Amino acid sequence: MPPRTPDVDPGTDLERHRALRIALNAAPHLSRPAAYRLALEPERWAGAAARGEPPDRLAAALGVPRAQMERALAVAAEAEPRAARELAAAEQLGAAVLLREDPGYPEALRQLDLPPPVLYVRGALFGALFQTAPAVAIVGSRRADAYGLEVADLFARSLAAAGVAVVSGFAYGIDAAAHRGALAAEASAGGVTLAVLGCGLGVDYPRGHGGLAAEIAARGALLTEFPCGLAPRSWHFPVRNRVIAALTAGTLVVQAAPRSGSLVTARHALELGREVWAVPGRIFDERSLGPNALIRDGATLVQHPRDILETLRPAIRDPQPGLFPAAAKQFTPPPATALAEPPPGLAAEILAALAPGAIRLPEEIAAGLGMPVDGVLGALLELELGGWVRRHPGSAYGRA
Amino acid sequence: MPPRTPDVDPGTDLERHRALRIALNAAPHLSRPAAYRLALEPERWAGAAARGEPPDRLAAALGVPRAQMERALAVAAEAEPRAARELAAAEQLGAAVLLREDPGYPEALRQLDLPPPVLYVRGALFGALFQTAPAVAIVGSRRADAYGLEVADLFARSLAAAGVAVVSGFAYGIDAAAHRGALAAEASAGGVTLAVLGCGLGVDYPRGHGGLAAEIAARGALLTEFPCGLAPRSWHFPVRNRVIAALTAGTLVVQAAPRSGSLVTARHALELGREVWAVPGRIFDERSLGPNALIRDGATLVQHPRDILETLRPAIRDPQPGLFPAAAKQFTPPPATALAEPPPGLAAEILAALAPGAIRLPEEIAAGLGMPVDGVLGALLELELGGWVRRHPGSAYGRA
Repeated sequence: MPPRTPDVDPGTDLERHRALRIALNAAPHLSRPAAYRLALEPERWAGAAARGEPPDRLAAALGVPRAQMERALAVAAEAEPRAARELAAAEQLGAAVLLREDPGYPEALRQLDLPPPVLYVRGALFGALFQTAPAVAIVGSRRADAYGLEVADLFARSLAAAGVAVVSGFAYGIDAAAHRGALAAEASAGGVTLAVLGCGLGVDYPRGHGGLAAEIAARGALLTEFPCGLAPRSWHFPVRNRVIAALTAGTLVVQAAPRSGSLVTARHALELGREVWAVPGRIFDERSLGPNALIRDGATLVQHPRDILETLRPAIRDPQPGLFPAAAKQFTPPPATALAEPPPGLAAEILAALAPGAIRLPEEIAAGLGMPVDGVLGALLELELGGWVRRHPGSAYGRA
Repeated sequence: MPPRTPDVDPGTDLERHRALRIALNAAPHLSRPAAYRLALEPERWAGAAARGEPPDRLAAALGVPRAQMERALAVAAEAEPRAARELAAAEQLGAAVLLREDPGYPEALRQLDLPPPVLYVRGALFGALFQTAPAVAIVGSRRADAYGLEVADLFARSLAAAGVAVVSGFAYGIDAAAHRGALAAEASAGGVTLAVLGCGLGVDYPRGHGGLAAEIAARGALLTEFPCGLAPRSWHFPVRNRVIAALTAGTLVVQAAPRSGSLVTARHALELGREVWAVPGRIFDERSLGPNALIRDGATLVQHPRDILETLRPAIRDPQPGLFPAAAKQFTPPPATALAEPPPGLAAEILAALAPGAIRLPEEIAAGLGMPVDGVLGALLELELGGWVRRHPGSAYGRA
């Protein structure tokens, strides 16, 4: 690369690169990955065309296909009017336009290898959101059933009430139930939720979610990397799902068909070193095949919001007990030690008296506990039968 | 121990010890563990009382409480008439009485530290059962719902059709559905099932299962360690569950409340180094809290009988495809590689061309694959975005 032309004012250069990145991000014929890559290093190519560098050399140097490079150079030629149009559209929607260097741009996205060049954010809490609260994604099928919707609502309410920001994709089904559940958490608890869209903020999608969007904007935020007027397309959703995974400490998959978008979010979460939680369901239920497969493949099975809250500690304050009195009775998960539970009573005392690795005679154990040998012998037999202790030659006992 | 009195005929001695073990096993006031222990070494104590050895010294030497030792000595004093009564009762029921050294006694039980001294077995297949077929336990709640019953039926049919013996506890609910499912497997496939009882073979328990018992006896076997006339008690069921776990390659828990007997069977299975499988269910369903907790604690989540059959290979023959045409459509579990699925097309070829650890330039990869650099750059960007590859300084790529 030739040395930077010294007669360019750096302030103006930065402004130009800012406009270029907004224009690149909004360019209709540029792939997302190419836009990500080129927006990372505008100084390496923005002035290159003017300097007569051939596009194929630039493309190879920057790691983008030549066709994408040529499109980007065409965008660069009219970057400023394009960016101005985007900024005006965002202003009309009441949305902030954040670039990577801006203070409101989430640190978790900034740290991605290929961060979204631009975020459009609308809502009350976008700045505070990522600094004050841990965030959890709750995602799942658009075609959820009553079970899935109840689970999404319960987890979202409980997490929001505990001070966790609930992030989802603003779709029908699980996503909407998660947003609504978070909003329904007691007002004192915050009830913060963040919707990440697969289209521009100016597009009314999906139909009928306008009221939900307004509620989310009032208490949380709507966020997208897509330009204001861009309608959703199927390939937008994996792009959105990467942002959802990256923004959160972990992703909870509630119901999802095999090969569905929620599993893409889970895969992104795994790749980014985030947690993946899944709610089990019936094996005959298509919508539970996704979460069940995730669990089989190593995701953490969760049965209660506290399974997630315990992972997030100490980042969060205590969940409010008794938040769901109606569901509380049936919603008592079993102890985590179901299989490792020690035997009760005398047997437990004897087990405690047997240090791991030690071999002791029943008489010694009885003397140590101040108990009759007979009772100790009986309890040792029960412990042996239960697999807790093993009998050694000479009638001595040790832990199994 | 004093040297053996030489004027005892060894043949008669063995016969006496056989009768003693049958009598011990049937003695009403002897604990199971004490009976197990004393039946292991009849020669160490059977003649001791006659030789004037004090019971407390015997008790300590054998590792049983003194009260149990005294009861055992009382049983020994009239072992032969007691044993004769048991043998007559068994004969009347058409049951075999098997001791540890008998050929039909299952090897898997013989290898326990404290094996049941006596097994009562009734049915067509008790001898062949444990030698020809691998066995799997299917256990669960007495109060199963439609989901649990359907799962138990499906797994039992499919496993039985594949030549696996289905072992269960003959209770209402999941157990009965498992036995019936195995019996319903196509006749050509065998459909073998084994019921392990928590009471004597002469007791009609649970009510209404007489017909099922007759069917099981005709095609499989009923088995118990309890004497013929002994009614069930709550503490019999953990005893039975140990036998179920020990007899099988693994235990499948279909539906079970927390702290239920099925979890005891699973714990025995774990202790014995057997597999534990569990079928997930809804988190609001009390009956699924047991299996869900087992999965969370490390049991293998299964969604289809083939998940179990694959573990048992090559011990079994192939399952019959199309056995359940009605359930087949909905019953297609997702691929095990849901999360690790490689990207399709050119991206997959590029990934394959990148050896783990290698760092290569896009131009090299393109030349190696005989493809234009442009297409390779585009695919590399997609791979980078998906977390499959990482870009290194100098525009070179390696696996992530």
